Amino acid sequence: MAKIADLYYQVSPWKVSEVGFDSSRNEVSESIFSLGNEYLGVRGYFEEGYGSASLLGSYFNGVYENSVKEHEAQYKGIIKRSHFMVNAVDWLSTKIELEGERLDLADANITEFYRELDFKTGQLKRSFVWTTLGGKRIKISLVRFLHMESVYYSYQKLEFEALNFQGEIQVELGLDFATIHQSEMSNFWTEEIKEATASGGAIIGKTLTTQQQIFSGFEIKTSAALSSEIIERDKFIGRKLNVKLEEGKTVYIHKYITNIVDKQQTDLDLLWQRGLKSLEDQLAEGYDNAVTLQKSYWSDVWQKYDIEIAGDDLNQQGIRYCIFQMQQTYHGQNPENNIGAKGLTGEAYGGHAFWDTETSCLPFYLLTNLKAARNLLEFRYATLEQARQRAKELDCQGACYPIATLNGNEASALWQHASLQFQPSTGVAYGIWHYVNVSQDQAFVFEHGVEMLIEISRFLASRGDWSPKGQFGFYGVMGPDEFQMMVNHNAYTNYMAKKTFEYTLEVVNQIKQTAPERYRSLQKELALSDEEQQNWQNCAENTLLIVDEAGLIEQHDGFFDLPHVAINEIPVEEFPLYNHWSYDRIYRNDMIKQPDVLMFQFLHNQDFSDQSKKVNYEFYEPKTIHESSLSPSVHSILAAELGKKEEAYDFFGFATRMDLDNYNRNTREGLHTTSIAAAWMNIVYGFGGVRTDGDRLVMAPMIPPKWQSYRFTITYQDQLIEVLVGQESSQFRVIDGKDVLIKLYGKDYHVNQTTLELPMI
Amino acid sequence: MAKIADLYYQVSPWKVSEVGFDSSRNEVSESIFSLGNEYLGVRGYFEEGYGSASLLGSYFNGVYENSVKEHEAQYKGIIKRSHFMVNAVDWLSTKIELEGERLDLADANITEFYRELDFKTGQLKRSFVWTTLGGKRIKISLVRFLHMESVYYSYQKLEFEALNFQGEIQVELGLDFATIHQSEMSNFWTEEIKEATASGGAIIGKTLTTQQQIFSGFEIKTSAALSSEIIERDKFIGRKLNVKLEEGKTVYIHKYITNIVDKQQTDLDLLWQRGLKSLEDQLAEGYDNAVTLQKSYWSDVWQKYDIEIAGDDLNQQGIRYCIFQMQQTYHGQNPENNIGAKGLTGEAYGGHAFWDTETSCLPFYLLTNLKAARNLLEFRYATLEQARQRAKELDCQGACYPIATLNGNEASALWQHASLQFQPSTGVAYGIWHYVNVSQDQAFVFEHGVEMLIEISRFLASRGDWSPKGQFGFYGVMGPDEFQMMVNHNAYTNYMAKKTFEYTLEVVNQIKQTAPERYRSLQKELALSDEEQQNWQNCAENTLLIVDEAGLIEQHDGFFDLPHVAINEIPVEEFPLYNHWSYDRIYRNDMIKQPDVLMFQFLHNQDFSDQSKKVNYEFYEPKTIHESSLSPSVHSILAAELGKKEEAYDFFGFATRMDLDNYNRNTREGLHTTSIAAAWMNIVYGFGGVRTDGDRLVMAPMIPPKWQSYRFTITYQDQLIEVLVGQESSQFRVIDGKDVLIKLYGKDYHVNQTTLELPMI
Repeated sequence: MAKIADLYYQVSPWKVSEVGFDSSRNEVSESIFSLGNEYLGVRGYFEEGYGSASLLGSYFNGVYENSVKEHEAQYKGIIKRSHFMVNAVDWLSTKIELEGERLDLADANITEFYRELDFKTGQLKRSFVWTTLGGKRIKISLVRFLHMESVYYSYQKLEFEALNFQGEIQVELGLDFATIHQSEMSNFWTEEIKEATASGGAIIGKTLTTQQQIFSGFEIKTSAALSSEIIERDKFIGRKLNVKLEEGKTVYIHKYITNIVDKQQTDLDLLWQRGLKSLEDQLAEGYDNAVTLQKSYWSDVWQKYDIEIAGDDLNQQGIRYCIFQMQQTYHGQNPENNIGAKGLTGEAYGGHAFWDTETSCLPFYLLTNLKAARNLLEFRYATLEQARQRAKELDCQGACYPIATLNGNEASALWQHASLQFQPSTGVAYGIWHYVNVSQDQAFVFEHGVEMLIEISRFLASRGDWSPKGQFGFYGVMGPDEFQMMVNHNAYTNYMAKKTFEYTLEVVNQIKQTAPERYRSLQKELALSDEEQQNWQNCAENTLLIVDEAGLIEQHDGFFDLPHVAINEIPVEEFPLYNHWSYDRIYRNDMIKQPDVLMFQFLHNQDFSDQSKKVNYEFYEPKTIHESSLSPSVHSILAAELGKKEEAYDFFGFATRMDLDNYNRNTREGLHTTSIAAAWMNIVYGFGGVRTDGDRLVMAPMIPPKWQSYRFTITYQDQLIEVLVGQESSQFRVIDGKDVLIKLYGKDYHVNQTTLELPMI
Repeated sequence: MAKIADLYYQVSPWKVSEVGFDSSRNEVSESIFSLGNEYLGVRGYFEEGYGSASLLGSYFNGVYENSVKEHEAQYKGIIKRSHFMVNAVDWLSTKIELEGERLDLADANITEFYRELDFKTGQLKRSFVWTTLGGKRIKISLVRFLHMESVYYSYQKLEFEALNFQGEIQVELGLDFATIHQSEMSNFWTEEIKEATASGGAIIGKTLTTQQQIFSGFEIKTSAALSSEIIERDKFIGRKLNVKLEEGKTVYIHKYITNIVDKQQTDLDLLWQRGLKSLEDQLAEGYDNAVTLQKSYWSDVWQKYDIEIAGDDLNQQGIRYCIFQMQQTYHGQNPENNIGAKGLTGEAYGGHAFWDTETSCLPFYLLTNLKAARNLLEFRYATLEQARQRAKELDCQGACYPIATLNGNEASALWQHASLQFQPSTGVAYGIWHYVNVSQDQAFVFEHGVEMLIEISRFLASRGDWSPKGQFGFYGVMGPDEFQMMVNHNAYTNYMAKKTFEYTLEVVNQIKQTAPERYRSLQKELALSDEEQQNWQNCAENTLLIVDEAGLIEQHDGFFDLPHVAINEIPVEEFPLYNHWSYDRIYRNDMIKQPDVLMFQFLHNQDFSDQSKKVNYEFYEPKTIHESSLSPSVHSILAAELGKKEEAYDFFGFATRMDLDNYNRNTREGLHTTSIAAAWMNIVYGFGGVRTDGDRLVMAPMIPPKWQSYRFTITYQDQLIEVLVGQESSQFRVIDGKDVLIKLYGKDYHVNQTTLELPMI
């Protein structure tokens, strides 16, 4: 595995900070210090410009463009054009000049550099002392934050203190749509309107092919009256300020920014007016109020989702960073949003959402924020039509959810993924089931859920096929384990399809029994027939899962006959294999990227005996090289369940600090957002032994030997539950809400507001 | 299958002719009327220009360019840039003007159009009467041919007869390097030198990236003295002639063209002088002598290779057309040449040679022209270094021959073919074995053959792998049957690899025994070791071929468990499936494109019992949809062997007339050259029952019920043998050479110059 921590940032329970600037880590730091409020995200780039390696990225959830090049799709089912989350307006655009010298941390004489991201305030702060070539010394402090509730509002603060002189500093602040999307080396914006405002300016940009619009406006307030002139360049509007400085005195500038996304091609004037009004409201609320609101917002978050670890400072910081970034990326503000593999923190993976939304991220929201969980599923419902279209392109019926998407359309041009992998579809079905199981939200499943389930089952029944022996399953597929391409009867795909059929039939039957009107509408609108249900029943009953006497499940038909690769003997320098091995070489041995069998044994945990989990864990674990960042978490969770404490902790290892310590050496591209969710699962589902796949909540906490204790809170249905786990005992308590029936260490308890203490097992 | 003849050209035993011009068939006719002499090929386009759909193609064997775009090869082993046979100089360039009206058959008023390609002279003739808008009527005749021996020489003849006027006609004749390569929509030539000559002109063009040069020069001789002026345009040189016409009298123009390819970047002056000298020699030989030599050349060809069919005019014409085009495409003139899938008749498949060179084309040459057979193998020897390089790119040892190539490098950018298909490599080994078996050319195999065999065996041993049960075979491959992608233990790949190991060891042992000096050089230069030979032995002995009790061979591990598709129920309009089915859908059922098992049972025919061939034929035949044009021939040959006369004839059906009747509706792209070879095999190996894979020649002729008789001649080693097959008996005779031991209908005979007559069995 050869994944080694690159520990660099200061270790602290409630913040990430950097003392002294390391330019070689600039792009990594840009990712680490990313801000987001689900509506938009901005990397921690230096707003004043940086003349060396940097990814100046500012992204708005769901604002995307189409790839410049159309692929030559030679064959049906291969997409011709991809789409990606596009780099948008640089609303932090800043230039600072003193004595004709422009500030650029790539070559300026800088001392006392300090930067911190505070999990309790959501503020990113930076300060340093700049000594100009002429010897003038000035302390500069910068703050930025995004309003978590009034998501249009963003804030920038600049503070200047002349240390050994008095004079003038020139500051240009503006809004810049001339940003470059690096992976396509192009700008994707046209300028629509641009005008000065009272003490700022505003601009509307529009994407080239998708015609999405963003209004961006700013106003400046300062601690001292000062003159400014309007500056206009192509796709840019700003103001240049001459700031008078007196030695030892501090001057600050507040820049209020309102960004409004319009995906509906609203009339420009209307959008303009709406933008100005918003900017006015933002000014009226004021900077200090916004700061206060932020603190209260984050305090509420930590009250509900915090995880405390005593005795492990690194993981303490790591898990809080994970929770903080999850919240920034997505908290269910808008059902049009989803969670990109890199969140809103970089261009990699095109900003696309993958199947980990339902399998890795959803559990976090199920136990912290049910509305967010539901909204993730509403995203899939809203894109059901695109999934239907995709199924047609694949010569199938029903709906096939894309392997990668922003807008519901398939975005992956690699047929070997887009046409062979169906975990997004079974993942949506699983997500619906999991959500309903936890939330008991019958209305959702009767209205939206059932339609998706029917269409997914339809797809699966048409894409699957029958062996001459009468076994149903999937031929020519790739499961989540992407090192076994084009196999038959992949156990994950088969098993998840079987569960999808069963759950669809269960829901359809419930509706038939309890909501005959709705049932009739399904018959009519979706042409749901008895024959089709009978077919699904038939498929489910005959789905092939190849299991030997000991309970070992074959990952696919023929997996046991594959040549063996001793993965521990692969030289470290050959990782990642995709970059060093001939492409085809990866796909013809018993090495796996991530464990398909263990994955569905985790997802449908209570379907499998301990014996079965043990046999499979012990067989597949040594064959897994974890080139998927989700893989170690699944291992850790199952190892915890199987009582393999050391292994559980070892696999947990880098999950919480994957990005902080840049384990994969690619954090510069953006954060591993969905792995962040897995880190949370690792503690709650892994060490906490929480299970939500049965008819009641299950917990069976264990504790790594190195920890003194840890504490987590989850919201199960409406009850806020606190779990405190020590080396000797665990304590359970409802902080807020009614009694909850929980199976603790295999035995049912009604947990209430009085602490229940149980000895560790 | 739904392949239906589009019978259009006149049926005649020794020519293809067209009476009246059908513009909708223009591009098909351009392919059909192609000329070639292995050195160069030219489509049957109208040299005077044609203002509608046309593929003006002029190709030189081995003259290629690199693709304009570099692919984004994301993974190792996927090529970044392809190469293709490039459209070269239009040495027929002609303009004809009368009264200011330019002749263009796309809109001219034309009557009495007639065109023919004569198999006995190799000449393409065309004549018609043109009535101008002004009512002038002129008969125009055009002839072209390529010298088959002095391959630099080409000829064009124009003849004019004014039918109702006297006056002047303007004729421009020239050489044009400004041709467009259609599939890349670009011209790939720069002009290097261009100058007038005595009565013509010359020009050297050079390819953009590969820096290959062609000298092209022409001289004009006419039946009457006439003035001409030199015409120069970009990449063009020509002469404009004013031809005086008198009513009822014929005037002709001979254009002599010399084309010299230079792949070595020779000094331009040297090339220029060489070209002019060649042109001079060509002029000295004269037009009529060249015509005479052509007739004698073709007479010799027909003497040696002709197939006569009595009672089937369509197939008579068809098979002669096949032999004629095979000879034009390749006859072993130069070991640097190979046989493109479309010969020299179009751009499709990039002019690339595929694995059918050794498996489909080689047998034709083995029995007609051993030098040509050897030269095909010398092409592979000359590109051994590129094959070694390719093996490295695939993380393997030894040499991997490319799936598609002009210069020895892999030209296919599709990893699913280039990285998974190894029939080119086993095909080369098979070709060496087959050639040596027929020719007994020990010198070749001891010198060049053995090096290729060792390197191919090395490749196979490193690409193959071992199952946990100790079975050797290939994982993650695609056999010739391209409808089963990424399978394990493909029977074709396994079996052909096993035979390769065995033959390599046999040759190496022979050398060890009989040429110890050479053996030591192999040990030294190729690092051939005993351990390696032991390993090949081990691989060969343990190669898995999955065979049931009845002798049925499983096409790959798991094939028998695949879902069944009733191929007869697939609607006709869904063919070709690649254009109508989702790409992945093709790869997950028991439908096959061409029969891998039957293929190697044909190639190593005498390894298998009749029973085994019968069982496999009857199992695989109904599953085969023949989207490969080679597939029906293999079926026909085996059906003949199995006594299935009707099926043999049905599968033979369209082979000989595939292009003449445009069965696949894509003849406009070029001729199916390698299928042409399969048509020949179909008669000689199929109906003739010839086998060359044992220690002596085998024949067991049968005759389709519809034929009165057929006759073919083959050259076995040095003996020219005639076989005449009637409904009642077959006759065998050595026309020229010594006695030959032949197994006839299972019994050995010494056939000599006295006819041996045997009754049909």
